[in-house]
Order: sequence, then structure tokens, then C-alpha cells
Amino acid sequence: MTKYVYDFAEGSGKLNDLLGGKGGNLAEMARLGLPVPPGFTITTDACRAYLRTGREPYGLADEIGLHLERLERRAGRRLGDLLVSVRSGAKYSMPGMMETILNVGLTDATVAGLAARTGDERFAWDCYRRLVQMFGRTVRNIPAEAFEAAGDESPRELTMRYLRVFRERTGEQFPQDPREQLDQAVRAVFGSWNSERAVLYRRQERIPADLGTAVNVVAMVFGNLGADSGTGVAFTRDPATGERGVYGDYLANAQGEDVVAGIRNTMPLQDLEARDKHSYDELMSIMATLEEHYKDLCDIEFTIERGKLWMLQTRVGKRTAAAAFVIATHLVDEGVIDLDEALTRVNGAQLAQLMFPAFDLSHGARPIAAGVAASPGAAVGAAVFDARRAADADAPVILVRQETNPDDLPGMIAAQGILTSRGGKTSHAAVVARGMGKPCVCGASGLDVDLRTGRFTVDGHVVSEGDVISIDGTSGRVYLGEVPVQPSPVVRHFEGEPAPGSDPLIRAVDRLLTHADKRRRLAVRANADTAEDAARARRLGAQGIGLCRTEHMFLGERRVFVERLILARSAARRDAALADLLPLQRNDFVELFRAMAGLPVTIRLIDPPLHEFLPPLEELAVKVARAEERGENPGHDRELLDAVHRMHEENPMLGLRGVRLGLVVPGLFAMQVRAIAEAAAAVPGARAEIMVPLVGAVQELEAVRDEAQRLLDEIGVDARIGTMIEVPRAALTAGEIARAADFFSFGTNDLTQMGWGFSRDDVEGAFFTRYLDLGIFGVSPFESIDRDGVGRLIRIAVDEGRAARPDLHIGVCGEHGGDPASIRFFAEAGLDYVSCSPFRVPVARLEAGRSAVTAEGSDTR
Amino acid sequence: MTKYVYDFAEGSGKLNDLLGGKGGNLAEMARLGLPVPPGFTITTDACRAYLRTGREPYGLADEIGLHLERLERRAGRRLGDLLVSVRSGAKYSMPGMMETILNVGLTDATVAGLAARTGDERFAWDCYRRLVQMFGRTVRNIPAEAFEAAGDESPRELTMRYLRVFRERTGEQFPQDPREQLDQAVRAVFGSWNSERAVLYRRQERIPADLGTAVNVVAMVFGNLGADSGTGVAFTRDPATGERGVYGDYLANAQGEDVVAGIRNTMPLQDLEARDKHSYDELMSIMATLEEHYKDLCDIEFTIERGKLWMLQTRVGKRTAAAAFVIATHLVDEGVIDLDEALTRVNGAQLAQLMFPAFDLSHGARPIAAGVAASPGAAVGAAVFDARRAADADAPVILVRQETNPDDLPGMIAAQGILTSRGGKTSHAAVVARGMGKPCVCGASGLDVDLRTGRFTVDGHVVSEGDVISIDGTSGRVYLGEVPVQPSPVVRHFEGEPAPGSDPLIRAVDRLLTHADKRRRLAVRANADTAEDAARARRLGAQGIGLCRTEHMFLGERRVFVERLILARSAARRDAALADLLPLQRNDFVELFRAMAGLPVTIRLIDPPLHEFLPPLEELAVKVARAEERGENPGHDRELLDAVHRMHEENPMLGLRGVRLGLVVPGLFAMQVRAIAEAAAAVPGARAEIMVPLVGAVQELEAVRDEAQRLLDEIGVDARIGTMIEVPRAALTAGEIARAADFFSFGTNDLTQMGWGFSRDDVEGAFFTRYLDLGIFGVSPFESIDRDGVGRLIRIAVDEGRAARPDLHIGVCGEHGGDPASIRFFAEAGLDYVSCSPFRVPVARLEAGRSAVTAEGSDTR
Repeated sequence: MTKYVYDFAEGSGKLNDLLGGKGGNLAEMARLGLPVPPGFTITTDACRAYLRTGREPYGLADEIGLHLERLERRAGRRLGDLLVSVRSGAKYSMPGMMETILNVGLTDATVAGLAARTGDERFAWDCYRRLVQMFGRTVRNIPAEAFEAAGDESPRELTMRYLRVFRERTGEQFPQDPREQLDQAVRAVFGSWNSERAVLYRRQERIPADLGTAVNVVAMVFGNLGADSGTGVAFTRDPATGERGVYGDYLANAQGEDVVAGIRNTMPLQDLEARDKHSYDELMSIMATLEEHYKDLCDIEFTIERGKLWMLQTRVGKRTAAAAFVIATHLVDEGVIDLDEALTRVNGAQLAQLMFPAFDLSHGARPIAAGVAASPGAAVGAAVFDARRAADADAPVILVRQETNPDDLPGMIAAQGILTSRGGKTSHAAVVARGMGKPCVCGASGLDVDLRTGRFTVDGHVVSEGDVISIDGTSGRVYLGEVPVQPSPVVRHFEGEPAPGSDPLIRAVDRLLTHADKRRRLAVRANADTAEDAARARRLGAQGIGLCRTEHMFLGERRVFVERLILARSAARRDAALADLLPLQRNDFVELFRAMAGLPVTIRLIDPPLHEFLPPLEELAVKVARAEERGENPGHDRELLDAVHRMHEENPMLGLRGVRLGLVVPGLFAMQVRAIAEAAAAVPGARAEIMVPLVGAVQELEAVRDEAQRLLDEIGVDARIGTMIEVPRAALTAGEIARAADFFSFGTNDLTQMGWGFSRDDVEGAFFTRYLDLGIFGVSPFESIDRDGVGRLIRIAVDEGRAARPDLHIGVCGEHGGDPASIRFFAEAGLDYVSCSPFRVPVARLEAGRSAVTAEGSDTR
Repeated sequence: MTKYVYDFAEGSGKLNDLLGGKGGNLAEMARLGLPVPPGFTITTDACRAYLRTGREPYGLADEIGLHLERLERRAGRRLGDLLVSVRSGAKYSMPGMMETILNVGLTDATVAGLAARTGDERFAWDCYRRLVQMFGRTVRNIPAEAFEAAGDESPRELTMRYLRVFRERTGEQFPQDPREQLDQAVRAVFGSWNSERAVLYRRQERIPADLGTAVNVVAMVFGNLGADSGTGVAFTRDPATGERGVYGDYLANAQGEDVVAGIRNTMPLQDLEARDKHSYDELMSIMATLEEHYKDLCDIEFTIERGKLWMLQTRVGKRTAAAAFVIATHLVDEGVIDLDEALTRVNGAQLAQLMFPAFDLSHGARPIAAGVAASPGAAVGAAVFDARRAADADAPVILVRQETNPDDLPGMIAAQGILTSRGGKTSHAAVVARGMGKPCVCGASGLDVDLRTGRFTVDGHVVSEGDVISIDGTSGRVYLGEVPVQPSPVVRHFEGEPAPGSDPLIRAVDRLLTHADKRRRLAVRANADTAEDAARARRLGAQGIGLCRTEHMFLGERRVFVERLILARSAARRDAALADLLPLQRNDFVELFRAMAGLPVTIRLIDPPLHEFLPPLEELAVKVARAEERGENPGHDRELLDAVHRMHEENPMLGLRGVRLGLVVPGLFAMQVRAIAEAAAAVPGARAEIMVPLVGAVQELEAVRDEAQRLLDEIGVDARIGTMIEVPRAALTAGEIARAADFFSFGTNDLTQMGWGFSRDDVEGAFFTRYLDLGIFGVSPFESIDRDGVGRLIRIAVDEGRAARPDLHIGVCGEHGGDPASIRFFAEAGLDYVSCSPFRVPVARLEAGRSAVTAEGSDTR
């Protein structure tokens, strides 16, 4: 028969699937002999069975009875005189999402006993009042407002009123059988797994919906029984800096809720030593035990009840990015863990955070407001309250709105950063800003934004349109005036500059990156279109260029060549335009090859539709219409409009671009291949790789390859020829395509757009916010690779490409190449390299190393 | 050791892979004891080995030697005195794509023997001249123009000059060793497998590139040795009507080339009886033998050399669509084949052809020109030479151009049909017209089109802009004036009208369709949005509606409701607009349910982006700009422009549409579901199925399903709720999606667009023509399902959907549902039904039946 209930002494942290995180850790502490109040855990199995059938599984009631008896024996009191808490505790932390009921066991009859035993009648009635209130809300769904307190009732009067409320709302007496209370509370916690907010949270955090929660039943201890009682939280190291030494807060004569509520001021943990040396010493000893056991920073919650210390919870503690690096290397130095393990204790997201520029607060800037840290980084600019004006501004601006919507996009693009007074991490502003990599503080609810007059007020400050403000998307803080921005010391260090004052962090980062480089199988390249970017990428550790986008070489002054190409009315004129582009392109590549000094450089042939190089259709149409209305001749504009009409596509993403363009416009790809080959011939040691975009069928690649190979042979240059895999069909027919490809490079952005059937530009504003709210995405598939859909295409292409051609070299050059979770996936899928923006190279190196030392990362949730 | 050479007596039709079609059939005839000139076949194995290594495989020369000796023994003459033809013959017919060399063996020395033996010196030298010319061109790549004839040379003089040309061009003597000639000719035929035109043809016809060709070496016989010689082609039944009785042409004193060249008039085969009763009777007997053997219409080529009949070739003969049906049922009546086999002898493409309207030529209309029959059907209209004018015309027009390009699209859309003077079946005009299902005749090279003056001349006729013409896209013919169009008698019969004069055909079609219905597992539904279409679909045999597109119900006068919905500034106004739409929608569905009388009706919730219901951006922008230039207030246009700007998407295909729209616009889907449910409640027996478009993740479907189910429960109606599978990710995660779906319906159009990454509208004009020319497509993936890419997604979705939910009902409602080759694929993939346009329902029924009786169709190539 399935075992549904585990005494703390029976459980362990290895049973987290069954006991949840909280139950597992309580069991661990019990096994270590630490002072945990007696209790037991009802398994997730029981919860799942309950949710499936709507009733407790057979045998559960008896098992609870047995464990309850054992608990009563240990406590020396029967339930009723013994009070218990009933708490949820799932495998993955879902803070605040499910239910907790305290003081279970109190009845009209037992409340007197509690008063007598504690000598505190107010306390006893207050406990009963809390039980009725929590029980009524949680078990019987009585609305919170039904339990509002009037000012002048005693705890006893209040409790009596709540008992009446309970009776009126439910038509039943408040249960006077302690065991009945317990059973109903357990059922309510089971049911809270499927509460609306829990369902939503799981969708967002990608926690499977069918895990269920465990339920912990623990004897109550009270920190609010006088001066010799209290409660606190503590960390075994400083979670902000990672420095050694305990760290925490203590609040005398208080319960845990009071600390969370933040009503009263806490004291530093160290001060407990003077108040209660015995408990303090015991706590220090316990913390040492926990660190030794968990081999990591732990955080704990504890209560002292009349001089007796009780451990209520522990877990491996959260920490800042900097602390993560410092702690990991300290633990290595202390001989607690090895470097492989240390690598698993940090992650790429943390390193990325350490690389953002930050405000230099050494001059004492004080924030005037704070909101949600929605998109990291520091931004300074004049406050502007209108998207259109932001888009038209000449100087740097911060767009300030109550909230943003798709109409604000032009302003968001133009602004240095975005500040809103409403909305959280999934608001439109937050989502779009993160997509753009732009600092954003949102939901700064202290701000009173008046769009009409163009100003906001906060805490006595008035900021009018044009006033300079500074926002910190990493901390969520807002400053008046210009706060100086300083580059990250980590980046300065990577770039070869001295980085004073941050030595422990720099040393830790260096050490872990070096170890990651030693361990990783995945090479890291950078996406770079210019020699300058290429040089930077090398300084940050790139082992080559994985994507050089040649279309960026047709912008600015060179646009005129593309115009000539498009407007050419004869093959001769078209060829002339291409011939004039050739030396410019060749020179671009010569510079790149020089900068990369013998490292491989993958050059993608031109990708976007040609009309992207012309002015937009609407702009031209309006210009021509206005000129005609005025009786003027629109001249060149008319010619351009005709060309754009000819080339106009309803869906340019799905139109004449990439290899299709190369096969339709004679000489275009040939010009680029010639420029690459001549440049490679001119730079000793140059390693060119020619990449064909948007291939969907092997025949396309064969056609381009044949022509390219002829040119390479003619010029006498060796180069790999490969293809992007960015069209779903390319992945689905990768076995065939591999026959004509020396390498594959996944374009995960296009693969995501076509795999999901939405274009990034169009949808980030239009429905991502709503989709995140609905829990359809936990995270945008453009930020982190969609393993089930797009990831499946990647696995198919890798497996079948390699089966057809074992020496096929495979990488990824989409934006996901810089995303930690995605890099882990690429390593698992067996890729040879990732390519990302230069700035992301260290992040990719770290993640590649991490994925080499662990099959499953510790940060996957 | 591999056997590379088969004597005709050794081979058989079962060895077509090895011997090619021609060689296999020659062997069959030899085995039947028919008078085939002696010869042998060199296998495709030998060809493949040669192409791989560049030399004949070991042993081939000896084997040829052995078979040559045997041939010489049978003929009683040595090669040289014995002449042979060397002909290619691949597994799949590739007419005219590879090489043939006749008269191999003639040399300066042996030509005299031929003259003596035949008593005709001119004939002998003419044979030698032909050999030198064919050999020079084919084996030594001498350009054709080098062998031009001057008017007054004797055959001997001409041959001598050609021998000199050969020497000058190659620096070598024309080979005087007959065996050397033979070996070189064989090598040349091998090599012709990879000629440019052969490669292109194979790509287009999807013939694998690695099959290679067999080579047939056959003793020459001559039909041009006087009045008792001759050559002919014959069919065992009439290939035009299918009626019983032989049918053919004969040309006395001629070679096969002369028949093909069409220089001289042939006589009906029957007339041979009077000329040469012996040969005629033998031929009749042979044809009876062949029919009995092949159990089908055969066509043959024969030669009579001085009174002796020789069979040169046979194969199962090509026939018209009507003949195919008639012959198949005749063969059943004759007890030759059964009905299952008869089903495999016809196909959906033939039935579709019989269903197009055609010109009524009974009044004697005479064509003035003919071109390529590029897109079937009959069209009548005024000739218009400019796309813009065609688009603006009020009356029906035929667009006439030299060739078309994407600029002509508006005119092509407006025209009844398209006529061009240049280009073939893969020209822009042909591809686009077929895509639109619009009649097209192209490459009518007799037409002299003058766009400037707006007229064309042909054969003395002048047609000016505005003159009415009639074009027949099925036959390629062009008529002056209006030719009356008559609906297909087959369709009239399906529609319940009497169809006089076509009885044998009608009976044949009925009989085979009835048998197909009996055999098929695949149900056939129709795509229909109106009660009228639904009624028609039922008459044509539809078993339900597989796709009712609700967006069509928002066009015309109802557009104003959508405008109200879009411009609504409050939830109340939005709800009011939806509430006003509800009764209209409900009535739409009531009519549909009534028309379908208890058959299932699958209704797709609204799919396109809302701004498709507003005027185009450019039009509005120009209107507003012009009004402003004139100092006027653009008013409502301004409001619409703002709305379109707000909703504008770069790529509407990939934007806010389908389920995304339903989740973002509150109340929209709910209004539709309510209308469906209320309509279903009002019509007894109504079977509604609600289909959610564009789902990519199970969460989307769950969200819509929850709301829809609540409404259905409220109204008390039962309905299946399912989803389109049209986004690649939906197919890739079908196992999850199936958990929330009662049915899947593949939207193969979108699946093709997203799988390949191109949108149909944008690319058909832009690069399909080029891709067809390059052989990247053999046929547009929008016409016939792409088995390797899109087909793979379908198989994944079917397999994993069914694994998750065995009772999952699966169909297809994209345009491929009416394409014969695609229907076969859907049947193989295990779908439950296809849904297609009403007109295509009989085609789908037939193909579904065919795929049930054969694993591999006889028409796959």
C-alpha cells in the first residue's frame, strides 16, 4: 500500500518529489538532530489522488491518525491542547501561491487550556481569532472583508463575532472537533494547488500542473510569548556580497508574520548574543551544521519560545549575482566543494547582470521613487510624457507613462529608458523593454503621472517634461537629475582596464570562467559585422565570428548602390552597380579577416528583401500624393514609389529574401562571394566560411553552392560553404540538406517566428503581454528557446544532419546564442558552437562550461 | 559478377528498373514471340557504374561482345553489314531528353555493301550521312549548325563533306571500326543522362537523379525501302474516346522520323489492309495479343521492311481523360480486369478535367491560334492589353500580354482568362493562373502582340482592344468572338440534370465513383460558407462541411459592424457591436445547419487580422494627405487611418489573428460560439463542430475551450471542439494539443507557408517561376503537398495526436484537400477525412477510393 504520510524523522531531502521542498528540508534538519518542532508531511501522492478523485485516498485518514498520535505522544498533549500549523509545500517554491492555516486544534473548549498554559488569555483568544479567520477564508471561501476588525473589540469579542460570521456565511458551526479541523485544513491545502493564482504562477514559471503539493503538519511554537521569546531570519553568509560571517534579523516577542509585515523594526542578529547567549550560541552552531550539510549558503527561519530555540525552515539561500560568484569560490578555497561544483553554483544570467553598466552612487545620489526592476541597466535622460515627442526629441529622453501600449512603440524605441507608474514584470512596457535590451522601471506606484500637464509628482518632488531623471532597471530605483553611469567593473576588467575595489568579485569571475573554458565542449563565437566589434569580441574570449551580417554593409552612404541595383533597367546597369559595390565589400571583409587573425569568420550572404533599403511605402505614397496635389512633379520619389510597389510584399518576412533573392537577382551573391574570396586571398591565414540564408530545400543550396565553388576555385581560395537552418522545412529535411552543406548554423529567431507563426516585431506589442498574463508563455520564446517546439526542430536537424554527414559542423547564431537556458539546451543537443553578441561571449562561455559539468542545471527553476 | 547485358529473350517487363521501360517492353514482346528485331539491352547498373567512375565497368566490353556475336549470328551478318540503333531508355519515360544514334556500323567500307544489298545507293549514303551527323553531334559535341545541308549535294557528297567537318572539328577520322562506333555511342548515351536538359526535366518531374538509363542496341530495319515498306503508329483502342477498335496511322516508304516530323500525310491504319493484307492481319493479331498481355490500351510503333512486319516499341498508351474512364469500365465488362483494378486506371486529375466547363464547338467555331494549354477551362471576354485597364474594366476581359510579370497581378485577378504570346507551362502567367484556377493559354507564338497600339495580329486576323475573344485553357486554342460555353456534362449529371450524348462516359464515371465510395476509408467533406454552397456540396457527395470560414460573414454590408468593433473606445461600445452581430451570425449558422440536415458542420472561428476589414493603409494615407494638402478635414478617414496605424503589422500572416485575436479581443469568440450554439439549438439534428484557428500551444486551445464549453453548457448544446493544425509548432507538439482537442484539421496552406517560410501571395509572382525553371520545385507546394517537409509535420501530428488520444478525429481542410496526389498522401497518413471545395468533392471521392485499393498509385509519375 502506498505510504502517504512521513514523520520528519522518516523523510529526507532526497524525497522532495514526494515531500516538497519545505517538508524535505524539515526532515533533513530533524535527521541532523536539530531542534525542529515535531510534525509530519502528507505526500504529493496523496494530493494528486485527492485532486483526481475529489476525496482522500483510501488509508490516508488512518495514516494521519497514526502520525498524529505519535506527535501527541512526543508533545505530551492531545490535539486541541496541542496546536498545529498546516502548510503547503510543493517541489518547486511557489511563494504565497497556496494556503497556510495556523493554530489548528483550537476550539471553544481548548482555548481556555491555552490561556491557562501560557498564562495569557488575550494571546489565547488572539490565536483562536486567527484560526477562525484563516479557516473561514481558506476552507470555506468566506470573503476576506467579512472578517474586518472593528477598533475597540477585545480578542475574545472579536473571536466571538468571527464565529458568528462563520455560522451566518456557512450555515454551520465552526468545527469544534480538532481532528475535523485538521482534515478540512488538509483538504483545503490540497485544493489550493488548483487556485487561480497558483495555476497562473505555474504556467508562468513552467512548473508542471500535475505535481501537486505536499502538506506539512507541525506543532505550533510561539515567539510572541514575552521578552524571552522572538523570531528571526538568518543567512550563513552575507547574501549581498558573499562575504563570510552570519547575517540576519531578529524581532523579540513576535511571530513570523510580524517580521514579514515589516511593522516593527528588527535588530541585527548579532544583538541576540547579548539578550540570549544560550540561544545565540546554539543558533551559530546550528548554522555551521547546516552549511556543512548543504555545502552552501543557507537561509533559515527560527523562533525562540520562552528561551527554547526552534528551527522552522531552512533552504539553500537566495543571493545576489556578485555573492554567488564570491561564495562559490570561497567554498572551493574552504575545501567544501570542487571547481566543477562551484561552476554549478553560478549562472550566465548572474554574470550578465554583473556586466550591465550601473550608476555610480558614490556621490550619494538618493532615489526619489522605486518600482519593479523590469529590465536591467542604467539610463539617463529628459522625462518626456508622450511617445511621439519622445520619438522626435534630439536629446536623450526617458519615456514616462502610466502604462504603455503598442502606440507608444516609436517613443520606446527612441528613449534611453522607460518608466511607468503601473504594471509589473509582465506589463507591456516591461516585455517590450526587455526585448529591446533597454532599461525599464515599471509599476513605480508612488508616481502621480499627469499626462495632460506633462509632469509627475512623487514624495513632494515635481518632475516636469524636460527635467532630467535617471532610472536604474537593475534595482528599480528612480533618481532626480543625472546620476553618472559607470561601466561594470567586470566588463572593464575583461576589456583590460584596471578595476579597483572589486577584487574578490573579479577574482571569482576570472577563476570560474577559466574553469568553464577548460571544461566546455561548446565553442563560443560572436556575431560581429565590423572590425571594431570583432576586436571587442576577441577581447571577451570569442573563438571566431559565427555571424557577419552583410546587409549592414549596405546601409548609410552605400544605400545609393542598392538603389541603383533596384532601379537598374538593364543587366548592364545592374552589373555596373554590383561592380561598384565589389571593392567596398572586399575591403569590409579584409578588415574583418585581419581583426580575427586566423580565427574562422562566418559570413552570411545578404538576407533581407531589397525594398528594406528603400523608404517605406506609406512615406513615399504620401510624398508623391502631396507633391501632386500641389501640382509639382514628384520625380525621383515617383520612381522609388513605383519600385516599392513592384517589390511590395504583404509579408516581407516570408517574401523574396535570403537564398531566394540570391537565386532571382543575377550576380548579387556572386559579387559577395567574389569579395569574400578576394579578401581571403589578400589576408594571410584568413578563414572564411560562406553561409547561405533561408534555405528550405537542398536544391536551393546546391544551386548557390555550385556557383560559389566555381568562384572560389577560380580565385584559388578554400572556404567552407554552409547554410542557416532557420526555415522549419530545412530542419525537417536536414538529412538531405547536409549533403550540400559543410556546416549548419541555426537561426533561432526566424525558426521561432516560423515555427510559432508570429513575427517578433508584430507580436511583442500586440499580444505578448496578454499571453504572459494568461500563462500561455512563462517567458517569451524569443528570449529563451522553446524546447518542445523549436527545440524539437533543432534536435531533428542535428541528429539527421550528422547521420547524413558525420563531420557536419553545427552552431547557432540567433539571439538565443546568448541566453543561458538556451545555451544549456544547445549543449545538450550536441552543437559545436554558439555565436552571440560580443557582450554576451563571457556569459556563453560560463554557461557552456556549466552545461559540460552538469546534465541538469541547478538553476532550471 | 554483375550481369550488365540482357538479350531481349532474357529480359522482361519486371526488370524495368534494370532495363528501362523501352527495353523491358521489347523483351516482353520478344517473349510473346512477336517479330522484334534482334537486339539486347545494357542495364542501368552499367550506366550508373560508368557515371560514377567515368569508365565502363569491368566485364561490360566482353559482355557486349558476346551479345553482339549472338546478334550477328541471328542476323547472319557482321556488324557493319548489320546496322544497329543505339537508344536510351530509362525507367521513367523522359521523351526527347536523352540521345539516340541510328545506323551504327556504317563505314566507308560497309556503305557499299548496304547499297548492294538494298540496291539503293542513295539510300545507303543517306544512312551513312545520318550516322555521321548524329554521331558527331551526340558523341563529339559538334554543334548542329556545322552539319547544315546545302541544296544541291548528292547524299554521297553530303556525307563526304560531313566526314570532313568531323575531321576538322575533332582532329580525328570518323571511326572506321564498327565496334568502336558502337562503344562510343553507348558511352554517349550513358553520358546523356546528365545532360543539362535531362537534369532539368528530372528535377521538374521529380525523377530521382541517380537512376541512370539503360541502352538498347537493336538491329536496324528500314521502312523507306520502297512501296512495300512503311512505318506506323497504332493504338489498340481509340485513345480519344476509349471506344473499342484499333486506331492508327501509316506512312508508306518512310522512316519513323518522317511520321514525327509530320511532313507527309499519313493514311488511316485501316487502309493498310488493302495495301498489304498479310502485314495488316499480322498486326491485328499482334495488337490483340498485346492487349491481352498488358490488359490495357497499348500503343505501338512498327515498321514494314519489304513486306516483313517488325515491332519497334510498345507501351501502355496515353489517352484522354474521357477515354480513361470508358476504357477502364469496358475492360471490366470484358472480364479483363476487376473494378478495383479499374479504379487504378483513372485518376482525380482526369476527373477534374472532365468537370471544367468547355466551349460548345458544335456551331463550328474555328480557332485562330493555338498555344500551350497552361491552365484549364473556358473564358470569354474583351481583349485588353494593359493590366491596369483590365482591373478597371466593367465588362469581362481577357488579359493579353507578350508575357506577364508581378505588376500585372491586379489585371490577372480581374480578367476571365489570360493569353500570352511567350512562355510555357512554367511561365509567370501559367503559374499564377493555375494558382487562381483561371483559364490561361500561353506561348501562343503565332500572335504578334503590339502593346503600344493595343492589338494583336495572327494569321491575317487583327484583334484590337475591346474585341471579344474566347480562349480554351484545356486545349490551348484561341477563338475570335464569343464561343458559347457549356458546363461539363459530367457536372450537369452530378447536379441532377440530364446530360445527353455522353452516356458511355457518364456511365463509366458513375460506376467508378460508386466503387470508390464503397472502397474508401477516407470521408469527403466540403469547404462551404453559405447554405447555397453547402447544398451544392451535398449534391456532389459531400459527407459534411469540413470548413466554414466565418470571416466571409463579415464582408459586404456587415463590414460596418467590424468597423464599429475596431473603433470602439469602450468595452460597452465593443460589446454593443458584437451584440448587433450575434443575430446575423446565428442566422448564418441556422441556414447552414438546415442545408446540411444532420451532417457535421465544422465552423472555424474568425481567423484574419481585423485590419483586413478596413481599407488598405496606403489608400487611407494618400486620401488623408490629399485632403490635408487641399486644406480639407479628412474626418472619418483620419480616424480609420489612425486605427490602421495602430493595428498595422509588417507581416499580417504572422500577426494578431486566429486564436490570438480571440484571446486578445474580449467577447469576439464568445459571440461566435454563442451564435453557433443558439443556431444548433434551433435546428433539430444539427451537428456543430467548433474549430479554433492558428493554435500553436495547448494553452491557447485550453483557454478558448474553457470559455466555449461554458457557453455550450449554458445553452445546453453538445459540440465537438477542435483545432486547426496549421502552425508548425502545433504539429510538433500535437501530443499535448490532442489532450484539449476533439479533432484536428490540417490547414495545409498555412502549414506550407510557415513550413517553407514564404507566403503564397508574395511569392507566386516573385520567384515561383524562377524556382520551377531551376528545378527547385517540380510543382508548387501549394498545389500538391510537400511530402518531405510539410508532410512530415502532418505525419508527426497524426501519430502523436492519436497516441495521446486514440479517438482523435483528423481531417484536412486546406486547398490540398482537393488535389489528387495530396489526397493519396492524406489517406496514407491515416486521416479520417479531407475537405475541399464543393466542385472538387467527386475528385476527392475518386482519389480516396483509389488510395484504398492501391498502396502505390499507377499515376505517381
